[in-house]
Amino acid sequence: MLRNSLIGSLRQIKPILCSQSLRSLSNGENSGLTTIEVDDKSGIATLSMNLPPVNTLTLNLMHDLIDSINQIECNKSRGLILTSSNDKVFSAGLDLKELYKPDQERLKEFWTIFQDLWLALHLCGIPTAAAINGHAPAAGCIMATACEYRVMLPDFVIGVHATRFSFLVSKWMMLSYQSVLPRRIVERALNQGKLFSTQEALEVGLIDEVAGSKKEALAQCAAFIGTFDKANPIARTLTKRMCRDSDVTELLRDRAGDLRACVDYINTPLFQEGLSAHLEGLKEKK
Amino acid sequence: MLRNSLIGSLRQIKPILCSQSLRSLSNGENSGLTTIEVDDKSGIATLSMNLPPVNTLTLNLMHDLIDSINQIECNKSRGLILTSSNDKVFSAGLDLKELYKPDQERLKEFWTIFQDLWLALHLCGIPTAAAINGHAPAAGCIMATACEYRVMLPDFVIGVHATRFSFLVSKWMMLSYQSVLPRRIVERALNQGKLFSTQEALEVGLIDEVAGSKKEALAQCAAFIGTFDKANPIARTLTKRMCRDSDVTELLRDRAGDLRACVDYINTPLFQEGLSAHLEGLKEKK
Amino acid sequence: MLRNSLIGSLRQIKPILCSQSLRSLSNGENSGLTTIEVDDKSGIATLSMNLPPVNTLTLNLMHDLIDSINQIECNKSRGLILTSSNDKVFSAGLDLKELYKPDQERLKEFWTIFQDLWLALHLCGIPTAAAINGHAPAAGCIMATACEYRVMLPDFVIGVHATRFSFLVSKWMMLSYQSVLPRRIVERALNQGKLFSTQEALEVGLIDEVAGSKKEALAQCAAFIGTFDKANPIARTLTKRMCRDSDVTELLRDRAGDLRACVDYINTPLFQEGLSAHLEGLKEKK
Repeated sequence: MLRNSLIGSLRQIKPILCSQSLRSLSNGENSGLTTIEVDDKSGIATLSMNLPPVNTLTLNLMHDLIDSINQIECNKSRGLILTSSNDKVFSAGLDLKELYKPDQERLKEFWTIFQDLWLALHLCGIPTAAAINGHAPAAGCIMATACEYRVMLPDFVIGVHATRFSFLVSKWMMLSYQSVLPRRIVERALNQGKLFSTQEALEVGLIDEVAGSKKEALAQCAAFIGTFDKANPIARTLTKRMCRDSDVTELLRDRAGDLRACVDYINTPLFQEGLSAHLEGLKEKK
Repeated sequence: MLRNSLIGSLRQIKPILCSQSLRSLSNGENSGLTTIEVDDKSGIATLSMNLPPVNTLTLNLMHDLIDSINQIECNKSRGLILTSSNDKVFSAGLDLKELYKPDQERLKEFWTIFQDLWLALHLCGIPTAAAINGHAPAAGCIMATACEYRVMLPDFVIGVHATRFSFLVSKWMMLSYQSVLPRRIVERALNQGKLFSTQEALEVGLIDEVAGSKKEALAQCAAFIGTFDKANPIARTLTKRMCRDSDVTELLRDRAGDLRACVDYINTPLFQEGLSAHLEGLKEKK
Repeated sequence: MLRNSLIGSLRQIKPILCSQSLRSLSNGENSGLTTIEVDDKSGIATLSMNLPPVNTLTLNLMHDLIDSINQIECNKSRGLILTSSNDKVFSAGLDLKELYKPDQERLKEFWTIFQDLWLALHLCGIPTAAAINGHAPAAGCIMATACEYRVMLPDFVIGVHATRFSFLVSKWMMLSYQSVLPRRIVERALNQGKLFSTQEALEVGLIDEVAGSKKEALAQCAAFIGTFDKANPIARTLTKRMCRDSDVTELLRDRAGDLRACVDYINTPLFQEGLSAHLEGLKEKK
């Protein structure tokens, strides 16, 4: 029926704590690009991205992130804090080299695992927060908006600057942005490819708090996770999924179509030329 | 056709002033749990809930509310102000005892009349405002958000704290909340089961004004109803219904499915145990 | 497929710079009711409405506006600023005389070209801004909200006051309003037929900046257009269309149905009487 959600009946309780079944990839070995630390006292798991130099979302890092989210979700942690081992960059976003003159089969695998990562974060059954301890451009920002709360350190930037390298984000990526920001702000920021400073991000609501240090950011994220203490965890999970249902359904109802449209776009001369110029620019900056 | 609204053509003028036809129950006798006072001068009707001790939404109170809304709507009142005869509680929300170890047929009747009450308030043809002169948790808050304006007295709480007693609200209840608050706030508040203080409610926009007394609250609601004086009443009604069409359609397109999903959820051990603990907690408070 | 947009694949690059193909009317001669000035230095085109006394949207003015938007869009201008030659009125909105005791065929033509104008502004491939140098009621406001940025001079009014002359706006017109303002504000303002003062419009976000003079307003609009300099123009256009897709689709999926519903409504005694009284009121004001 029309009203049925593609993620299954919203009131179906099992299996809700482990949401892997909605994703497409089987889990291989974890390459060790992420670390999980669980605080014994609070029961909160801190998931750190640890791929030097800038936590670029390579196929392997995305695989390890999904694997780690699954582990944390299924091991009854009280919450998940996403952060970076790097003190300058939260994540630099997708590995753009995978998009430049791509091998077609690998590109499909790459985009599919990015869809999976987005779903893993959006549907994660336990409370999630991002301690943004460095720059968070493009997919780095998308990961942060997929969490339920955002604490950021000063003097960094966050935002989806895809139009600056000729990229067109998918509708489900736009919906992540819209779930946090007013529509007027989203259209303008996406069109501009705007990178918000920490202060600007706070003013528009893209982040919830500013922290003086990573330690403080982690504590603020933990305090946020503590705000759910009076809620029944399963009712909370079902409620979160209901709130996110329309966004998630946008992707789930036609994952193959999104993949095809993205691959086609990535292969256009327009995008290849725009990306080439962008990659040249990045080289010169170094 | 796709674009046709389930509430009928949005531009269809008759019958618009009496919206009962969209609801499912025939009207029985009114049990006198509500009172209607019409101000002869202003033409505004004040509808008071009057079921001691805390205006719990029992089957009878909901029946009387719907009946009173119909009367006020069809008797050409200039506006409707929803308030409470109790000076501590606006409404304590649904009668949770009806959800605990329920008789199945009665549970269906109970949920159906709650759907009807929600529709009666959402589609009410005349201007509506809530004078929230006491606590407004759960369905008490949903009733307030179904009105067009909210004035609240200090030192009370308002919010949908369903997750605290393991309940999962229906999508149409979430949409009431979203029609008033930004999405980011809604997801967080629903997940937390947050009860906003009067001051917090004002800051996020869940209420529009704070009043020093019930008398003042009623006057502020009347002033709001006065802001429609330049609008043609029928064009106003049609415009209101258009603005609310997508939310109302969420319920109307599959009322039976919503009923089934809710009844199934209410019968789960998860919910029955959560509710049992919650009811025990309420007893101890007394 | 369901997810396919009615404006074609969102990632389809050609033909994107000229969006006429989505509209229904062939272009006839331009009657000279608009002027285009292109700043050689900035490459920005200023499109002025120039139909005394108050830029009422007549069939001819709408025709010329669409024609001018097409020209500017296809001639590789860097941006479009919509403004008025009149220093008191931006645009008084639709020519209400066309709605009063209308010739049916002409009414259909009139409403269809208004749909076309809305589409032309919403889908315009280049950055758009409105320099609102006078009153902008009704369709004057809708045109401004269809642009990406709004700068307004003090002491004027803007808003959709349709209910004051018994009109019911179409859903796609409401969506223009919702793309700029929060839902709670939109419902209330549409129901009231509210005209916001410049200062009120700034506070709710209906406009982005206030300017001291028309010259300043044009400069602020040009500065806004400059914020897209780092974005790839084609990726920007596709991103803008994606952000607006759900609104535009509301109209495109059943233009004929919208036309039929509007024509039927306009022919009702309710509307004809309301409009008659409104037109009498306007006469008396003069």
